[in-house]
Amino acid sequence: MKVFLSGFGTVGQGVFEILLLKEKYLKDNYDASISVVGVVDSSSFNIDKKSLCGFCVLATKTNSGKCGPNARDGKPVTEIMDMTDYDVLIETSPTDIENGGEGLANIRHALASGKDVVTVNKGPLALEYPALAKLAEENGCILKYEGSVGGAMPIISLCHTALAGQRIKSIRGILNGTCNYILSRMDTGLPFSQALREAQQLGYAEADPTYDIEGIDAASKVAILANSIFDRAVTIRDVSVTGITAITPEAVAMAAERGMVIRLIGEVSDDRLEVAPRLVPKGHALAISGTLNTAQVLTDLAGPITVSGRGAGKHETASAILSDLISIMESRK
Amino acid sequence: MKVFLSGFGTVGQGVFEILLLKEKYLKDNYDASISVVGVVDSSSFNIDKKSLCGFCVLATKTNSGKCGPNARDGKPVTEIMDMTDYDVLIETSPTDIENGGEGLANIRHALASGKDVVTVNKGPLALEYPALAKLAEENGCILKYEGSVGGAMPIISLCHTALAGQRIKSIRGILNGTCNYILSRMDTGLPFSQALREAQQLGYAEADPTYDIEGIDAASKVAILANSIFDRAVTIRDVSVTGITAITPEAVAMAAERGMVIRLIGEVSDDRLEVAPRLVPKGHALAISGTLNTAQVLTDLAGPITVSGRGAGKHETASAILSDLISIMESRK
Repeated sequence: MKVFLSGFGTVGQGVFEILLLKEKYLKDNYDASISVVGVVDSSSFNIDKKSLCGFCVLATKTNSGKCGPNARDGKPVTEIMDMTDYDVLIETSPTDIENGGEGLANIRHALASGKDVVTVNKGPLALEYPALAKLAEENGCILKYEGSVGGAMPIISLCHTALAGQRIKSIRGILNGTCNYILSRMDTGLPFSQALREAQQLGYAEADPTYDIEGIDAASKVAILANSIFDRAVTIRDVSVTGITAITPEAVAMAAERGMVIRLIGEVSDDRLEVAPRLVPKGHALAISGTLNTAQVLTDLAGPITVSGRGAGKHETASAILSDLISIMESRK
Repeated sequence: MKVFLSGFGTVGQGVFEILLLKEKYLKDNYDASISVVGVVDSSSFNIDKKSLCGFCVLATKTNSGKCGPNARDGKPVTEIMDMTDYDVLIETSPTDIENGGEGLANIRHALASGKDVVTVNKGPLALEYPALAKLAEENGCILKYEGSVGGAMPIISLCHTALAGQRIKSIRGILNGTCNYILSRMDTGLPFSQALREAQQLGYAEADPTYDIEGIDAASKVAILANSIFDRAVTIRDVSVTGITAITPEAVAMAAERGMVIRLIGEVSDDRLEVAPRLVPKGHALAISGTLNTAQVLTDLAGPITVSGRGAGKHETASAILSDLISIMESRK
């Protein structure tokens, strides 16, 4: 299986590392090998078989900040993709929640070219899921995106495979580890601004934290779940979103007096699409502290099924990409 | 798909109900139908197409305690299976953890006849997993058993599918809801005997609770996980087992003073096979209260992934059987 890697930041490099790490495992367990035939980052690209081998490209990135010898000079990724013979596009470039950006163009191009796609780039899915799913179907392609919701928390596979046959009535979850970290720290009495600063110092929050704290990241995941699990043709614009910036220490203290904590909960069902701070009883599955992601899936036959895992991280997110790649390999057998 | 149902207790009847409930769903989503061509319970059997239809067999069971018009008169299930034309054996008869009992004979017979098998009967797997897996492979059959570990908690599918590509370093879990209920109640100061009595009154514990409280049930699940996930050829006899009968209110109180609770934890890894009461910090994913089952899967790439769900119940366990049946249908396409 030959993959083209769009984006060579933390996750993209993680994919490369994992493919190296799992070379023998894939050979032994699936009699398969996955090779990278192209990598592109914001300023450079690499489609040279020799320098894509082994650790070379990782060393090049570390040393020069570039993934390869070729300058992009404004060349679109789609053009570079076409210079290679790939089977699967792995889309890990920075997300654009306004219009999908280059990631959307790349996914469209790959699907239109009959290639399978694995993406952790949320923007294109949160904006154009129905059209992309249709494009994939028309071209006989597989579109996978486990890592786009909850990182290593395998919510998509859980709902589609493990819970096959059940009607999923709702999913409620902690879908943004940054907000959950901030709210967990506010449980100890910190004001929002101080908890946010701490999250930034620890690398959990970006310098510009808007995307997380305004609930936009969680909302994009809600939109993806609505499409993928509930078969609803919606975009992030259909999600009712309230972030956590208005939560005061007084509100947190009042909640605590009643045995509750405040958590940012994303909820999807047949008639709900919402991200909002909610009161959650202490001891409840969603009353977790720290950066984990958790989702509670309410089913018709088995009641609630809960799953949790790390919502972000280099190898965590790359592990979801790996499981998607293996799933595609199995389907293409 | 034609299924033969061995065992018509709570779970067996749950399967029947769910197949009725999901008839349209299976048609709409998988263009498939699943029909029961034979049912057998301890004293009777039914292989009559007409009286197996719809709710007839459920009504017959409710009214007469029998699943059909034919007395077994000591006839082995395998003989009755051979009187029908089935694709999949669903084995839900009472478990025999000493020698596997009739369930083991039924599974062997089905596999040897080239039929797929879905079992929630733990005994045969806990005693003979390696031989059964080999038999299935030799005959080109699929052997599924999601409901045998943790009921509706989809731990098998999670490890095999959702976490594909990851090395699973260990699984630690609360695998017996009865024990967890008793220990949760002991957290409030109740002595063991009183908590047990309460569990019996609520229907969580059997009249003879040995199988649960001595850790045997949890140990059989540990043995199944060891075979299925860790590729270890072991039986329940290889599991080091300590039950919960010796836990005193004093021990629970001492644990609480240190911010801990006592829980019966099953643990599997490459070099561990154990069921024992353990101290778990409050707030930890395994420090849950009540009858839920929970498992924490430690992976090489993504760290811990936790899943929980109802460990028992009519439709809960039957839902796991349904997902196995759908998985077989998809594989046989």
